[in-house]
Amino acid sequence: MVAKEKNKVKNLAVLGSTGSIGQQTLDIVRALPDRFRIIGLAAGSNHNLLFTQIQEFKPEYFSYAGYNTETTNLKAFVRPKYLPLEEMATLPDVDIVVVGTSGIAGLDAVLAAIQAGKTIALANKESLVAAGEIVTAAAKKTKARLHPVDSEHSAIWQCLNGEKQSPRHIILTASGGPFLDYPPARMADITVTQALAHPSWKMGKKITIDSATLMNKGLEVVEAHWLFNIPITDIHVLIHPQSIVHSMVEFADGSVKAQLSLPDMRLPIQYALSYPDRLPNETLPAFDWADFGDLTFAQPDITKFPCLRLGIEAGKKGGTYPAVLCAADEVAVRLFSQEKIRFTDIPIIVEKVLGKHDGVFSPSLEAIKAADNWARETAYKIAGGNV
Amino acid sequence: MVAKEKNKVKNLAVLGSTGSIGQQTLDIVRALPDRFRIIGLAAGSNHNLLFTQIQEFKPEYFSYAGYNTETTNLKAFVRPKYLPLEEMATLPDVDIVVVGTSGIAGLDAVLAAIQAGKTIALANKESLVAAGEIVTAAAKKTKARLHPVDSEHSAIWQCLNGEKQSPRHIILTASGGPFLDYPPARMADITVTQALAHPSWKMGKKITIDSATLMNKGLEVVEAHWLFNIPITDIHVLIHPQSIVHSMVEFADGSVKAQLSLPDMRLPIQYALSYPDRLPNETLPAFDWADFGDLTFAQPDITKFPCLRLGIEAGKKGGTYPAVLCAADEVAVRLFSQEKIRFTDIPIIVEKVLGKHDGVFSPSLEAIKAADNWARETAYKIAGGNV
Repeated sequence: MVAKEKNKVKNLAVLGSTGSIGQQTLDIVRALPDRFRIIGLAAGSNHNLLFTQIQEFKPEYFSYAGYNTETTNLKAFVRPKYLPLEEMATLPDVDIVVVGTSGIAGLDAVLAAIQAGKTIALANKESLVAAGEIVTAAAKKTKARLHPVDSEHSAIWQCLNGEKQSPRHIILTASGGPFLDYPPARMADITVTQALAHPSWKMGKKITIDSATLMNKGLEVVEAHWLFNIPITDIHVLIHPQSIVHSMVEFADGSVKAQLSLPDMRLPIQYALSYPDRLPNETLPAFDWADFGDLTFAQPDITKFPCLRLGIEAGKKGGTYPAVLCAADEVAVRLFSQEKIRFTDIPIIVEKVLGKHDGVFSPSLEAIKAADNWARETAYKIAGGNV
Repeated sequence: MVAKEKNKVKNLAVLGSTGSIGQQTLDIVRALPDRFRIIGLAAGSNHNLLFTQIQEFKPEYFSYAGYNTETTNLKAFVRPKYLPLEEMATLPDVDIVVVGTSGIAGLDAVLAAIQAGKTIALANKESLVAAGEIVTAAAKKTKARLHPVDSEHSAIWQCLNGEKQSPRHIILTASGGPFLDYPPARMADITVTQALAHPSWKMGKKITIDSATLMNKGLEVVEAHWLFNIPITDIHVLIHPQSIVHSMVEFADGSVKAQLSLPDMRLPIQYALSYPDRLPNETLPAFDWADFGDLTFAQPDITKFPCLRLGIEAGKKGGTYPAVLCAADEVAVRLFSQEKIRFTDIPIIVEKVLGKHDGVFSPSLEAIKAADNWARETAYKIAGGNV
C-alpha cells in the first residue's frame, strides 16, 4: 500500500445520522477529522438534530424522509443539496456508506450501495437477517464490501483477519440483558423503563428491548451466518455479563481467538471505517491492565428467553422466515413500548406469526417485502385479539 | 498459493527430540503423517528413547551429544546417518528446524539454522533471552523465520496475524504456578515434588520449576520483547490460573485480541509447523462450548515471586544481563532440584549474581557466552557460600 493512499481521507455518507449509530459515527469523525469527511447525512425523523449536524459537518448532501412536507428549517439549505436516500448511498465521491438506519427500511439503500460497489459499514441487522441471501449474493457480484458494525460481528471479523480458512465454530457472546438474573415468574410484569435499562451497552430503543428479550442475539446468529458463510448449527451463544469479550472464533485446529474491549460502540464503528488500519483515538476507552477483572460465561436459558430460540429456529428454516421474525418482532416491541402488551407477549406474538407463515424459499426481494408486510399485519391482528 | 504447494509435506529436523517439546512434536507428526516428515532427530541424552524414535520415524539423519563415546545402540545404525547438531539444523532438505533443546546449548544450532535461512519453530527461550539482539538481527538479514512455540508467544503471534500495525501493549498471561495461593511464610519449605506439580501444563522439569517461581514469565517478557519488537514497558503480566487465555494483544485503537485453547503444548507446536495453515487434528483437545467456564485474572505478586521482577529488570537493563539471568537461574534451579538450596534461595542467588555483574551492551556472541560462564561460576560460588 502506498503511503499516500494509506492516509487518504475517507468520504462518508451516514444513513441514519440522528440515531445511536449515526451519532456515534459522527463522534468518530469529530475525533479524527484528518481521516474522515462527511459527504452526506440522512435521517428519517428528528430534523432538528439533522439541522445541527449539517451546520457542524457541512456535508455536500443531505436526505430527510419527511423533507417535502414538514421540515421548514431543512428547506432553508441551498447547500447542502437534498438527495433521496438511495442516491446518497451511491454517490461517486463516497468511499464508505454507513448504514445506521433501523428496520427493513434500510434494505433498499443497502442494495443500492451494493449495486454501486461501495464499502458499507453495516449496522442495519434487518437487511442481513431478512434478505441475507440477496444481500450477500449481490455484494459478491459487485465486490461491494460489507464491514460489520455490530460489536459481535466486528469481533468475529477482527478474529478472522489474516486467517486463510473458514472457522469451525463461531461463539457469539451476549450480555444477557437486564433480566439475566430476574425471577422468571416476574418476567410478565417487566416495565418499558426496566427493559430500556441495559446494564452495559448504550444503544437505540428497539435494539435495547431486543437485547432484553435476547431476540437481538437470535438476529445476530442469522446475521453471522450470512456475513461469515457459516452454518447456523456451528454458531453458539454464550452469556457473558461483562460485555468485554465481544465474540470468539474457533479454527480448524481448535485454537480460539476472541476480541475484547470495553463496551463502547464507537470502537467497532471506527474499525469498520478505518479497516484495515487501526487508528489511535484518545476519546475511545482502553483497559486499565492493572485492574483487569474476571470474565464469566454461562449457557443461555432459552426457556426464560424464548426469543433466542425463535431467532435461531427462523434462521435454520431460512427463506422468508427470518423476514417474518424481524417484522413480527418489530411490531411486538413497538406494542410493548406503547404498553399495549406485556414483555412476555413479545415471543408469544412472534411465535404465533411464524407458525402461521407459509414460507417462500430463495425468495425474491418482492417476496421478502410481501412476507414483511404480511407479518406486520398478522402481528397486529394477533395482538389485537387474544395474545 | 497453488493447491499443490499448500499440501506439500514439510520436512522437519527436531533438535531435542527426546525432551518434552520434541516428544510432543513427534505426536503431531504421528497424527498428521501426510503433512510432516521427520528428516532428522537430535537428542542430548536419553539414547534409548532416541533409538526408539529412530525406529519409528526412520529419519535420514540423527544427532546425539554423546555419540562417539557411549551409545552402542545408536552406533548400530548405518542409516540414518550421524550428523553434528549444527549440520542437522542447516540440511538443504529441511523446511522447519524445531528447536526443543533447553538452555543456552541451543543457541549455536539456532544461529546455524538462521544462517541457512530456515524456518525455525523455536521453543528454546534462552537463545532469545540471552542473545535476542543477535538472533533477531541475524534472522532479519537472512529472512529466516522464527515461529514461536511457547503457548504465550504463539498466542501473540496468532493475534497479530493479518494486522498491519505493531501492538500498543502485549498482555502475557501466567497460570501463577502451583504456589499462587500458597502462604508466603511457607515458601522456603517448598519441596522439589511440590514445585514439579504444575496445575495446568505438562512441561519439562526446568521450565516447570521456572513456572513455580514465575521466572519463566520474566524470561517470556524478554522473549516477547525480541520476537515482537515491543518495549518491555509495554508488556504486562496477568495471572490467569485456568491457562485458557494464552496471551492478549492490545492494538492502537484499544481493541484487544486474545488466543484461547485448552492447555496443551501440541497446539502451539502444530501451529508453528502448519503456519499459515491450520490443520484439523482429532488428537488435539477442543472446547466443549456447552461447558465453557469462567476466566479469572489477577495482578502478579512480585513480593512473593521476586523472580518475575528480576526477569523484567534484567530485560530492561539489556546487554548481557538477560544472559546472566538465564545462567544464574539454570544453576539455581539445578541446585534446588538436587535439594542443595531452598526454593526461596533461587531468586536470592539470581539477584546476587545480577548485582555482581558488570554488563556489556550490544554484546557479541563471545561476550554473551563469557557472561553465561561467569554467571554459572558465580552462582555456584554464592550457593556454596552463604546464600
